[in-house]
Amino acid sequence: MTRLEKQMQFIRELDKVKEITRQTYLADGSRKENDAEHSWHLAVMAALLAEYANEPIDVGHTMLMVLLHDVIEIDAGDTYAYDAAGNETKRARELVAADRIYALLPEDQAAYCRALWDEFEANETAEAKFANTLDKVQPVLLNDASGGISWKEHGVAKEQIIRRNAHTPEGSEELWAYAKGLIEKNVEKGNILP
Amino acid sequence: MTRLEKQMQFIRELDKVKEITRQTYLADGSRKENDAEHSWHLAVMAALLAEYANEPIDVGHTMLMVLLHDVIEIDAGDTYAYDAAGNETKRARELVAADRIYALLPEDQAAYCRALWDEFEANETAEAKFANTLDKVQPVLLNDASGGISWKEHGVAKEQIIRRNAHTPEGSEELWAYAKGLIEKNVEKGNILP
Repeated sequence: MTRLEKQMQFIRELDKVKEITRQTYLADGSRKENDAEHSWHLAVMAALLAEYANEPIDVGHTMLMVLLHDVIEIDAGDTYAYDAAGNETKRARELVAADRIYALLPEDQAAYCRALWDEFEANETAEAKFANTLDKVQPVLLNDASGGISWKEHGVAKEQIIRRNAHTPEGSEELWAYAKGLIEKNVEKGNILP
Repeated sequence: MTRLEKQMQFIRELDKVKEITRQTYLADGSRKENDAEHSWHLAVMAALLAEYANEPIDVGHTMLMVLLHDVIEIDAGDTYAYDAAGNETKRARELVAADRIYALLPEDQAAYCRALWDEFEANETAEAKFANTLDKVQPVLLNDASGGISWKEHGVAKEQIIRRNAHTPEGSEELWAYAKGLIEKNVEKGNILP
């Protein structure tokens, strides 16, 4: 297989990301969003909100990181943030997925994209921290816009959200403060359990 | 309104891009894709296929260009490539849309994002040419993968596709050659009218 054919094989495989449903609803509440839409939204946010990163970030690097961060869910599926059982096996399922999916690419790009996902998961670089912050803030924006449908469906409590977001301020204190404001507003509204 | 509130207002508005349906089906033919999914796919392709650009490109710049290139369709709607009447009014509808939508952002970012869309439309820089090539090649990939559903539904002829792609080789001779191979294959299969 030529280099281009390998790249095209990966690009065709990626189409499945459009069919991985998340628990977050679109802003208008009409349906749940999927991983491709979510990743697109994060990449735009990375570009437009980079100024709020706690540390200077390489925007292009962060964009590609968020564009590809959920690709492993083609095999591993989406694990809901507040699904305790699912989260116990999440890491193992995702590692197996990463081994298969990135290997579709030519070796150099497979290694590069895999490293990008490992970097996201490790959450240690400025780019990974900012990417993880966006990944947590975006669903808060959508949940707030939709009237908290997803929070209400799952009976989510404020304490769970705060615990889940222990690392969110590490990427951006300002974006976390903004998200926290929305969370408080939704506790008051009764969309999040106090 | 604070700078951050303006940015968040734009980011929330963008959610509508997830509900703009295109005429291209997903690779598995299950449903049509939307603009957010399409733009996500293009951005990943920009990063992974940059080596095939006829001229060297700034990858991050190209990624943001494709991520935002269909935002004007929030107001203007998607105009199908082979809809002659729709294409006559397309430019005028899109200009009005661009004036409203980008103005939601703080002034500097509004100007930057608007310029990025103007650059895409003018199709003169290396980045715009490559972005336009990807925008044409990606639906060919998906149409081929889905067994040509969209081509068959609209009774598209090879000549129409070739005319529509007059500028596609300008971004990448190699990617256009690849797409042309898929087009020929689908003419032979009877998915595209000869």
